[in-house]
Amino acid sequence: MQENNFKIDRHSLKTAISRVETDKIVTRGYNQRDLIEKIRYSDMVFLLLKGRLPSIIEGKIFNHVLVSFCDHGVTPPSTQTARIVTSSGSPVNSAVAGALLSFGHKHAGAIEKTMDLYQSKINSLYLTDDAEIDNKQIAGLAIEIYQEYILKDKKVPGFGHRYHNIDPRADKLMEIVIKEGFIGPHIKLALALEDLIYQKKQIRLNVDGANAAILSDLGFTPDLGLGIFIIGRIPGIIAHIHEEKMNEDEFRRFCDLDDVIYQQRGK
Amino acid sequence: MQENNFKIDRHSLKTAISRVETDKIVTRGYNQRDLIEKIRYSDMVFLLLKGRLPSIIEGKIFNHVLVSFCDHGVTPPSTQTARIVTSSGSPVNSAVAGALLSFGHKHAGAIEKTMDLYQSKINSLYLTDDAEIDNKQIAGLAIEIYQEYILKDKKVPGFGHRYHNIDPRADKLMEIVIKEGFIGPHIKLALALEDLIYQKKQIRLNVDGANAAILSDLGFTPDLGLGIFIIGRIPGIIAHIHEEKMNEDEFRRFCDLDDVIYQQRGK
Amino acid sequence: MQENNFKIDRHSLKTAISRVETDKIVTRGYNQRDLIEKIRYSDMVFLLLKGRLPSIIEGKIFNHVLVSFCDHGVTPPSTQTARIVTSSGSPVNSAVAGALLSFGHKHAGAIEKTMDLYQSKINSLYLTDDAEIDNKQIAGLAIEIYQEYILKDKKVPGFGHRYHNIDPRADKLMEIVIKEGFIGPHIKLALALEDLIYQKKQIRLNVDGANAAILSDLGFTPDLGLGIFIIGRIPGIIAHIHEEKMNEDEFRRFCDLDDVIYQQRGK
Amino acid sequence: MQENNFKIDRHSLKTAISRVETDKIVTRGYNQRDLIEKIRYSDMVFLLLKGRLPSIIEGKIFNHVLVSFCDHGVTPPSTQTARIVTSSGSPVNSAVAGALLSFGHKHAGAIEKTMDLYQSKINSLYLTDDAEIDNKQIAGLAIEIYQEYILKDKKVPGFGHRYHNIDPRADKLMEIVIKEGFIGPHIKLALALEDLIYQKKQIRLNVDGANAAILSDLGFTPDLGLGIFIIGRIPGIIAHIHEEKMNEDEFRRFCDLDDVIYQQRGK
Repeated sequence: MQENNFKIDRHSLKTAISRVETDKIVTRGYNQRDLIEKIRYSDMVFLLLKGRLPSIIEGKIFNHVLVSFCDHGVTPPSTQTARIVTSSGSPVNSAVAGALLSFGHKHAGAIEKTMDLYQSKINSLYLTDDAEIDNKQIAGLAIEIYQEYILKDKKVPGFGHRYHNIDPRADKLMEIVIKEGFIGPHIKLALALEDLIYQKKQIRLNVDGANAAILSDLGFTPDLGLGIFIIGRIPGIIAHIHEEKMNEDEFRRFCDLDDVIYQQRGK
Repeated sequence: MQENNFKIDRHSLKTAISRVETDKIVTRGYNQRDLIEKIRYSDMVFLLLKGRLPSIIEGKIFNHVLVSFCDHGVTPPSTQTARIVTSSGSPVNSAVAGALLSFGHKHAGAIEKTMDLYQSKINSLYLTDDAEIDNKQIAGLAIEIYQEYILKDKKVPGFGHRYHNIDPRADKLMEIVIKEGFIGPHIKLALALEDLIYQKKQIRLNVDGANAAILSDLGFTPDLGLGIFIIGRIPGIIAHIHEEKMNEDEFRRFCDLDDVIYQQRGK
Repeated sequence: MQENNFKIDRHSLKTAISRVETDKIVTRGYNQRDLIEKIRYSDMVFLLLKGRLPSIIEGKIFNHVLVSFCDHGVTPPSTQTARIVTSSGSPVNSAVAGALLSFGHKHAGAIEKTMDLYQSKINSLYLTDDAEIDNKQIAGLAIEIYQEYILKDKKVPGFGHRYHNIDPRADKLMEIVIKEGFIGPHIKLALALEDLIYQKKQIRLNVDGANAAILSDLGFTPDLGLGIFIIGRIPGIIAHIHEEKMNEDEFRRFCDLDDVIYQQRGK
Repeated sequence: MQENNFKIDRHSLKTAISRVETDKIVTRGYNQRDLIEKIRYSDMVFLLLKGRLPSIIEGKIFNHVLVSFCDHGVTPPSTQTARIVTSSGSPVNSAVAGALLSFGHKHAGAIEKTMDLYQSKINSLYLTDDAEIDNKQIAGLAIEIYQEYILKDKKVPGFGHRYHNIDPRADKLMEIVIKEGFIGPHIKLALALEDLIYQKKQIRLNVDGANAAILSDLGFTPDLGLGIFIIGRIPGIIAHIHEEKMNEDEFRRFCDLDDVIYQQRGK
């Protein structure tokens, strides 16, 4: 075994995720030998992030969420970045990293912002009233959001898509959670809000908005939203990297000199 | 809908991964509405990368592979990078990108190198002899590799681990494929090679070596090896990023001035 | 010449930085042939960022700024990230990218925050009073900042360093601008603030605080602060990457299993 | 001062670049206070990378090299990546990191490959003959390279540019080194090779080829070639990031749905 020439004081690196001993790895309290044999990959993701295995219904719903993030063709900036980096001859991990850097607050930030919005609203109910949350209260929150955003001409996070009128992923996800009876307060709020916004503005929930509600009802805090989106989207990005490498010329030319407008000196 | 101020000539962006139309997304020939409802996330990964759904046994085995890559605690350079980047106050996508950049040829490159080795050996049999591959031929290949590496004191890719004598993940994966009867020529070759190397050197297959053989028998080419490892490992990295953010001080101090040895000027 | 298979509509890519024609490149209005022959690299940086060449004194001061960012040994997270990524066998551009990702708001964000603070304060004077700014007004602003931060126990950006009591770079930069008579309102404000804070708290300007003031007096807006720091620091990072590659074992071990504290399951 | 909760054994982090003590930083043997006051930024870069200050002529030539890398408008993949990442709302350090990841072996790899080629050829002379290298020997090496590449229809690294017939930067650099009398064996070789290749193929040295020769005569080894290119190019990339942020809509649309060709299922 290799020598450690970077000897760190014991008790300085702390983790509750995995305990590694010689010939044994225990993750979130389970021997990895058992995890490898017995659980679904989507449940493994849940276990890593939440520290416990999902219930049957949680596992089912979380699987739908992960699949729904899979791919949106060559249109997203992240996919285009992955292809340009690949085209330059960089390795696959660099191309995936490039794609991730394109998940800025304008591209993939909506999910966390929406989770924040839904959870802060729902939490305000719990604070003021410890009885069961009823539909009337949810409707009140939807109106609040409507007033804070639509009436002030602000974009509501989680609504609208630049290529779709009805985002087919959001629509399907909502259909599924209704069918499966997995409807907590955050999903109720998203649905009530969609009713209101659609009536007045013909704008609907997008995939980020639907998943923000579902992940909130699954008990995830907003700071994990982008991470879960990343997990769901990376396989698609790797498929694009592979396709670029297999089917396109290396270092293909992305623009001609006369495609560019040169502006006058001075900004 | 937003205007495109970057108008690209039609027929310039090509993809076989997803067809995006207004209100409809079709991935690898399947409507995403159906995929979201019906398939497991690990099968979705397979579909994206291979262009077809797995058979039942392929889906099962591929799920074991993905779970086996999940986490190795705080020891890997990639996890440490993710934590340092997080500690500096960068967003989660940057921290994941940093981790990915640490998958250099020394850290995560072994899987592709091992797939290359196994596949080139097995392909050489198909080239010279189109009859069924038998165990004797496999044994011959194992001896070839043994001679090319061990006798020349070169490290065999896919063998040995700096923290484990028996990598519990490799051991479990091999137990499973044997139990499930999923043993193609590449797995046979890995097992034969392990017998040989263990006898002489007491070194065993590691998780990369085991998965290189399994992924080869699943029909993946080497250039997808690192991508599949990335898919499997990213959830663990995101768990570490979350843990760092929740439990540690921002910008914690990683070294003291007198931890450092200053060498004389000149190298 | 290579064909462009990505034909973009003319008038879609706009830039005022460089005009590229066959056999000719004009940057910020100057033929690159002339720039290569005649100007100093630090003036080239100024030209690129500001769109014009610096005056003699501006060029001199900007050169001091760039040199002052050069290196802080192995202590910064960015340098450690660069070394870990290099150690994993990734190429130099990936290691530099990893280092950059560690410039989060806690590591390198101070310069922009400080520029924001100084410029918003000074701009407030220009708004309320178009006469020359006098020392009394500057002193008033310093007291304002003191009250907004120190009295509320908030960290003043640009002050204090975790390894230094007197940051030698800040101290030298201030000595130089005084000697050279390059003292605009932002530098005056930084000096007045330092007097106040040092008296009460024995904390002094750091390299970010000094450079924030100087760059503000050079006419840079805050959004270029991090970029200029990056330009100044990257040569040092590349020196560390080179040193790691030359002098250390590849994939050296950064921790031992018993260096780690494993916490109980559950977070 | 902040506590270090990551206590590393002394003598584990080694560096010859900078010695950091409380209130004092010494880089390559010089107090940073002196460096900040006295040296040009381009000389600081040389000092960091080589461990010593340049001679007057070395400093002059190295300055030309750095300026020559500055910018090539919006055409390079790295610049396009920087703009896409910026457009997504990511911070400037992420956008620079994205640009760096596009410096793959096809985009920025030529300089190291060319340095390797020139240095291995010139070194072969030193090995076989310790007398002064004469022009006849250089001419012999040029013919060797010509035969190994051109006669075998292989691209010679450092020659040809997809937008230029005469790369104005290479042409100017060669004019300067001749005028300044800075012509070592590597530059001689590059010039001899250009004569040969231009006669037969009408292809000329590009900026990478010219700088590979110059940097080799300045005593840099090939593994620093990409790093020096990065140092020279990053200011231009930061100018593009700034321009994108100031002048373009956030998250601007880069393609329309009917710009894309969807291929049949199956690859």
